[in-house]
Amino acid sequence: MSDPFIVIGADAAGLSAASKCRRDNPSREVIVFERGEWISYAHCGTPYFIKGAVDKLTDLQSLTPSAVEKRGIELQRKHAATAIDTVSHTVTVAGPHETQDVDYDALLIATGAEAIEAPIEGSNLGNVFSLHGLDDAANIRALLEPPTEFSSDRLGGGGYLDTDTVQTYGAREPPETVAIIGGGYVGIEMAEAFRAWDCRVHLFQRGETLLPAFGEAVGDIVAERLTDANVELHLDTEVTALTGTGGTVSAVTCDTGAQIPIDAALIGIGIKPNTELIADTPIESGRTGAIQTDKYGQTTVDDVYAAGDVAEVTHTVTTEPTWSPLGLPANRVGRAIGMTIAGSPTPVGSVVETAMLKAFDLECGRSGILDNERAEAAGFEPRSQTITAQSRSGYYPGAAETTVTLMADATTGRLLGGSIVGTDRAAVRINTIATALGGEFTVGELELQDLGYAPPFSPVWDPILTAAKVLHGRVG
Amino acid sequence: MSDPFIVIGADAAGLSAASKCRRDNPSREVIVFERGEWISYAHCGTPYFIKGAVDKLTDLQSLTPSAVEKRGIELQRKHAATAIDTVSHTVTVAGPHETQDVDYDALLIATGAEAIEAPIEGSNLGNVFSLHGLDDAANIRALLEPPTEFSSDRLGGGGYLDTDTVQTYGAREPPETVAIIGGGYVGIEMAEAFRAWDCRVHLFQRGETLLPAFGEAVGDIVAERLTDANVELHLDTEVTALTGTGGTVSAVTCDTGAQIPIDAALIGIGIKPNTELIADTPIESGRTGAIQTDKYGQTTVDDVYAAGDVAEVTHTVTTEPTWSPLGLPANRVGRAIGMTIAGSPTPVGSVVETAMLKAFDLECGRSGILDNERAEAAGFEPRSQTITAQSRSGYYPGAAETTVTLMADATTGRLLGGSIVGTDRAAVRINTIATALGGEFTVGELELQDLGYAPPFSPVWDPILTAAKVLHGRVG
Repeated sequence: MSDPFIVIGADAAGLSAASKCRRDNPSREVIVFERGEWISYAHCGTPYFIKGAVDKLTDLQSLTPSAVEKRGIELQRKHAATAIDTVSHTVTVAGPHETQDVDYDALLIATGAEAIEAPIEGSNLGNVFSLHGLDDAANIRALLEPPTEFSSDRLGGGGYLDTDTVQTYGAREPPETVAIIGGGYVGIEMAEAFRAWDCRVHLFQRGETLLPAFGEAVGDIVAERLTDANVELHLDTEVTALTGTGGTVSAVTCDTGAQIPIDAALIGIGIKPNTELIADTPIESGRTGAIQTDKYGQTTVDDVYAAGDVAEVTHTVTTEPTWSPLGLPANRVGRAIGMTIAGSPTPVGSVVETAMLKAFDLECGRSGILDNERAEAAGFEPRSQTITAQSRSGYYPGAAETTVTLMADATTGRLLGGSIVGTDRAAVRINTIATALGGEFTVGELELQDLGYAPPFSPVWDPILTAAKVLHGRVG
Repeated sequence: MSDPFIVIGADAAGLSAASKCRRDNPSREVIVFERGEWISYAHCGTPYFIKGAVDKLTDLQSLTPSAVEKRGIELQRKHAATAIDTVSHTVTVAGPHETQDVDYDALLIATGAEAIEAPIEGSNLGNVFSLHGLDDAANIRALLEPPTEFSSDRLGGGGYLDTDTVQTYGAREPPETVAIIGGGYVGIEMAEAFRAWDCRVHLFQRGETLLPAFGEAVGDIVAERLTDANVELHLDTEVTALTGTGGTVSAVTCDTGAQIPIDAALIGIGIKPNTELIADTPIESGRTGAIQTDKYGQTTVDDVYAAGDVAEVTHTVTTEPTWSPLGLPANRVGRAIGMTIAGSPTPVGSVVETAMLKAFDLECGRSGILDNERAEAAGFEPRSQTITAQSRSGYYPGAAETTVTLMADATTGRLLGGSIVGTDRAAVRINTIATALGGEFTVGELELQDLGYAPPFSPVWDPILTAAKVLHGRVG
């Protein structure tokens, strides 16, 4: 019998691969090592747990350890892989009691990503958080609850929680004023969460627009909405230091010279792939910093695969490797690798980096390339068009402004990307653009799609078709 | 100077063509003849006017006569085209005062469709309606309002209304019990409208499922929802007669022998294209009964075009002519013909018959082929799969069951069609399927689309991807 299929990391990519491999080849030995306590949790759900829209931490878990074991997978939590020897086909794993070398027949690196630590003085002060994982979420939520009402049981940690730390935060007075450093996904979602607890919120963004990945049109509308929700925006503003009193953060200092008193801070300036494990191996990372993979998710070393937030994947539009640390690709690539290892070679597919985001009552979506520089670097001559149309027939109650941006190549008309923002069912509409990108449509072809119309849901010309019609007149 | 571009019918297709032709070629003479008073109205909005969700009839007009004239179009209302002479290039038009022969250089037939008259005894009784046009809508709404509160002014007919008829209905006692004959689009939408006025509603459907165009999975869920809303369903039941008292309908008789007392009836058993005008011409209608057209929307006779509910259009999946009397194709085909006539030949594109429908709080969508017989007739070997998944991450409040059906060809895996139904943003999701059909995707390609994920809007695997994943395992 061959050595086992070893998976490092028990989250979306790792467990998708392990589960699919076992299902397709039930006699295959599969071992998953996870360095933490938690497995298979919905990282994207943590802001909603902090907000209070989701009751229990364990609600965010899609699989319990026992469900994983029922699939015939050997799951080892609190076991950190510390080294890979690609010649002897061995992984070194440090458990709570001992360190062992485990032979593999096939190996999947699915170690995910982690929050970037800010190069900001004072970021190790008390009440300064980042948000990457359920422990961070539990700590922030504990701080927000009034100490008189706090109980660590109510967080629903299901026994995985670091109770001591949580109780320390639970005993503190909730913050009146919070600084959010970074205006990306986490920053926007956490602004909503903190406002739900009636905190005064200052949001600092180094660049001029929020949510740069969604493009300017979305960023500007989100900025307006945040201002309406009494989030104080500090755009084009860099935070230079956090200062404290008695070890706890008490003020934020900006490059503008302004100093603003705060009681807590959340740093959300991005994430980076956890690639430490490949440092002394021939497994190569690509230009994005994530691990290089081929069309089957295999790294530059035979029998070693990588998937999820630690790995690169091919971009449909540029055909170049990209780093797309999002939920669906992690699951899908993991699943394909599981099939390949089970004996049926399965390409992992490509991505267009589709994402959706809620910003208070705004629904945002983005897909493909929305950035002139990136489009030019990929050899395109980008043209973009932003239009605003109604989400329903104008006469139907509830029709709301929906803003669509499309980008296409000036010469060929090829659709490169798009974004959408609005309050009425806007987010799911991004899937039309994602599918058109998947089909390598021109904007003229997108214009000819036979999309649905009904007064309560869509005008005759869907806002995306209207955008395509206008942009088509300018390209191709 | 050449003879004018003549358009028969001032609705979506006709006015799209006229407007686009004038815009692209401002020196072109364009005359539009319309046999009625109303122009450019949203037929799909009439149930919502009757329900009371839309205030005024004129809200349903997308263009006023003066706006049309401002575009440099000569608009002649109350002018009915009665004959076409394709040899002499002449249309005979009967106006209120005189009948004239008008020469054309190019002609567009955009005469639309009309409600099929039921071959049911008693369908000419008082309080028996069909719903095709704003006058029908005004009459039904007038009947539903309490006579003491009724005022024809409040209907907002803007001077186009047949006030005498409307006042007759307005003076009558509102119906307590209403029969709807036909469980298609109009029947379902009108069930909601009548229930909003607290009428007791009986809905009769000849076949076993409602909404056959949406497939069985949608039909069954809609039937449940209607039952919950206290609509009494009579499936597999044919209405054989309407009987009256004093000239007004008072009972409906079914083939089951049952006789049910009613106060009003709405017959919505379908529509048919208005093709009378081509009866004595070489302009041919196709197998669907609508007018044959080529890829530019031209009929079998040079310089004569047809568009909208009176014309055929090519089906993307079958590549056969189909009859798709829906809003978007009417606008899009009309617009393309306008461009062609203005001097820039423009193909009208093809359709996948995408439609959306509201049934109380249910959102329904359909696209492509969902019918085994039709798929087989087009040379496919259909396989279909229905799945039910959550609309959002399961832990996020408001997640709702969403049922997706996909149909694909067993051998090639080619996606043939799909439907969706659910209460949470289900309808707009059909556009993903429509776009995949437009791209001639296999179900395996659909499965690989990089659709969006965010807990408030979509689970990691969009319900459509889940359906594709399951069906992909069975085909291709």
